[in-house]
Amino acid sequence: MSNRKYAIVGTGGIGGYYGAKLQKAGFDVHFLLHSDYEKVKTDGLKVESVEGDILLPKVNAYNNPSAMPECDVVIVALKSTSNTALENILPKVISPQSVILLMQNGIGCETEVASFAGTDNIIGGLCFICSSKVGPGHIKHVDYGSVNIASYKADGTPAGITDQMRSIYDDFTAASINIRMSEDILDARWRKLVWNVPFNGLSVLLNTATDKLLKNDYSRKLVKDLMYEVQSGAASQGKKISDDFIEKMIANTEKMTPYKPSMKLDYESKRPMEVESIYGNTYRIALDNGIVLPKIKVIYEMLKFLDQQNK
Amino acid sequence: MSNRKYAIVGTGGIGGYYGAKLQKAGFDVHFLLHSDYEKVKTDGLKVESVEGDILLPKVNAYNNPSAMPECDVVIVALKSTSNTALENILPKVISPQSVILLMQNGIGCETEVASFAGTDNIIGGLCFICSSKVGPGHIKHVDYGSVNIASYKADGTPAGITDQMRSIYDDFTAASINIRMSEDILDARWRKLVWNVPFNGLSVLLNTATDKLLKNDYSRKLVKDLMYEVQSGAASQGKKISDDFIEKMIANTEKMTPYKPSMKLDYESKRPMEVESIYGNTYRIALDNGIVLPKIKVIYEMLKFLDQQNK
Repeated sequence: MSNRKYAIVGTGGIGGYYGAKLQKAGFDVHFLLHSDYEKVKTDGLKVESVEGDILLPKVNAYNNPSAMPECDVVIVALKSTSNTALENILPKVISPQSVILLMQNGIGCETEVASFAGTDNIIGGLCFICSSKVGPGHIKHVDYGSVNIASYKADGTPAGITDQMRSIYDDFTAASINIRMSEDILDARWRKLVWNVPFNGLSVLLNTATDKLLKNDYSRKLVKDLMYEVQSGAASQGKKISDDFIEKMIANTEKMTPYKPSMKLDYESKRPMEVESIYGNTYRIALDNGIVLPKIKVIYEMLKFLDQQNK
Repeated sequence: MSNRKYAIVGTGGIGGYYGAKLQKAGFDVHFLLHSDYEKVKTDGLKVESVEGDILLPKVNAYNNPSAMPECDVVIVALKSTSNTALENILPKVISPQSVILLMQNGIGCETEVASFAGTDNIIGGLCFICSSKVGPGHIKHVDYGSVNIASYKADGTPAGITDQMRSIYDDFTAASINIRMSEDILDARWRKLVWNVPFNGLSVLLNTATDKLLKNDYSRKLVKDLMYEVQSGAASQGKKISDDFIEKMIANTEKMTPYKPSMKLDYESKRPMEVESIYGNTYRIALDNGIVLPKIKVIYEMLKFLDQQNK
């Protein structure tokens, strides 16, 4: 096992779950907390999980990024709606050798975080997981749990499989986390958007779940049309997503247990929704490359309205 | 005053209001009813109105179209969602001399009703009114009340101002109904869609009213974009709507009392929404003329989903 130090920035459903898995496997993990700091410092972390619960009575808890040690891997697992906070935090927790593992939804977040952190040493992490914070220091992990990682390059070209990715791959595997590596972060992010764009927004706007969206002829058509707009957006950045991939995504979702996407849960809990990272950036990146995505823009504008009314 | 006989098919917020105004002015009016028949036959009609209430203790009430006399003007004021019922009713209430005055929302309803009635002798009536049925035989008229009429021609060309239109104009004016005449029914319907397309659907999908839709930057942009798609749809049928008309429509709506469109009221009361006549026909007519309206199609598919879930 490596002696790499891990920092967790944002100890919620995602950061809490992966951080706890790493600590349980013996890694040196340092958790940055905000409102839950006192509770976690005193009582530790609890992850109720379908894979078996993880109880960590003692964790390295911080409420001040300056107090944290230099870490080799800084896992950023804040919602993308809180990214402005990173401008203050990141310079305090990274060293020139650190790599940032950015576990966020949508597209464009690596570019944003690179500007805050003053480094391009970023690996994107795409999480396929149903996990959320249900109380202070209390995470509930309901389903899935895998991560797909890929290195960021500022010029948008594929970075391939880097040594840093392999190190993280080894550590996560040692911590029993299902992880895979991809050569092209943009390609990976566009593929995830194929699912996120239709199901997140429509579950909020139509107050429903994945199964009903696919059972109704009209919403099923809209789901597909939105997926094909994501395909056009990907093509505008030179990333090829096949029709087969889209059909398979629909078929897989039909086999899933009916599922409320994270945006639906955020909306119901009156938390900010990741409208910019999933819709705004998607629409704007395509537009910058000369491709208009009118249906995604409609969904974007409607979600912005709801997000602002929901405050 | 003419001795023209009027039939009212659909005695709800619209049919009940105009029928009562005509009867009060001395016209011979015959009301076709369904669930309210017994109540109206016994107690008559009551229109609570901002202009002063109209109480009609005795009206000619029918629950069977075959029992009605031949009428000169058959006012059809059913919601367009009930148009299949007209296939049975219309042949029984029209004579070769009758004109159908079709008071319905959206576009394409004249063509549909012509096929049921076996006649092209149809005048479209576009009502600008807030009026609804609040109980059996009990109409509540809250605001506005004007009608814009224009004759239908199967080939889509403007019919101009016809003698039949002038007769109705005279009768309605005698009944203190604010009425105007237009030469081109399609032009009139497209202009009304400029308002109906954004405000009806978005008030349902975003659970809000006209004022909030215009105050928020994102929904205001979407309202405008939808209006401009209606402009494209109109152009696909050779009808020219100016940018000025659109800007004025926005400015006028801003001056209005915050308002829940009829579709929003229908949705809240779990009644069918006029999704086909306001969105489906609009989208399909443009498509038949080679113009794609992607944003209207998104709204259409979302509303179809909600309409079907709302049953």
